Amino acid sequence: MDILKLIKTRRSIRKYKEKIPSDKEIKKILEAGRWAPSGLNNQPWRFMVIKEKEIKEEVASLSKYGYIIKKAPVIIVVCLDKKSSYHYQKDLMAMGACIQNMLLEAHSLGLGACWLGEILNKRLELQALLGLDKNLEITALLTLGYPRERPSSVRLPLEALKIKRDGSL
Amino acid sequence: MDILKLIKTRRSIRKYKEKIPSDKEIKKILEAGRWAPSGLNNQPWRFMVIKEKEIKEEVASLSKYGYIIKKAPVIIVVCLDKKSSYHYQKDLMAMGACIQNMLLEAHSLGLGACWLGEILNKRLELQALLGLDKNLEITALLTLGYPRERPSSVRLPLEALKIKRDGSL
Repeated sequence: MDILKLIKTRRSIRKYKEKIPSDKEIKKILEAGRWAPSGLNNQPWRFMVIKEKEIKEEVASLSKYGYIIKKAPVIIVVCLDKKSSYHYQKDLMAMGACIQNMLLEAHSLGLGACWLGEILNKRLELQALLGLDKNLEITALLTLGYPRERPSSVRLPLEALKIKRDGSL
Repeated sequence: MDILKLIKTRRSIRKYKEKIPSDKEIKKILEAGRWAPSGLNNQPWRFMVIKEKEIKEEVASLSKYGYIIKKAPVIIVVCLDKKSSYHYQKDLMAMGACIQNMLLEAHSLGLGACWLGEILNKRLELQALLGLDKNLEITALLTLGYPRERPSSVRLPLEALKIKRDGSL
């Protein structure tokens, strides 16, 4: 199975149908996150799944992307458990691997998701709103639902990403 | 296509056959990295592919995992281009997403890879050795080749990763 096509057709989906993803689908997405690699296999990721309209609206009020959060059937708050942390930079990369697994699994199930980082501007407010344990550091919000759009996207050409043998770009 | 099985069967591969991955395979792996998501689509990842025995041996001398690096047919040095950076924490998560895409694509091609973070202890030495532009920050080394082992791995149960509604684990 070559997943390159899946990787290349994944998009940030900001508009969703009303249909709610099933618990089975959500579980598969969390399972994908769970199997990410991490330094020393420390698995620093923790997840809070939110479907309640009232809580979503409170979370939405903290973000300029509230219009996405409010209308998403499901949101997943992705946290780094500082108790399991061993190297902050590597932990953050592991969090990114975990999130990417979840985004790819969502896409493979026909769902759409959006990785929202802007909420980090209000990290402490969201921490308080959700009553999160002080060891849990919010690293991202994922919104999730059946896609109601099919946006395009672009990337830099591969040649622009390759470091030359002399160390220059 | 449900990629959960691919995600769950990927392993860190530290022992390789002598067969060298083709340029076409390496290109597909870089393509997978290229299509990762990043904040504001800033695409901070840059890649240096190394196949030369002499350079691999010099890189290997900087790491306690040198025995893996030395025997890997290919290594990919993954850097963050600080010129394209806009938020260091989010950039690191994007780097993790990029690396995970490459690891998954390698696995889907029947190749094995290992994400080595320990080299970051000698980041500046490696920077100098490779003559890397000062804007390029080394974030990881990936070793790559046809697998000559099939290790097992474990993860915490999903229930241990779920944050309860009261914010506790």
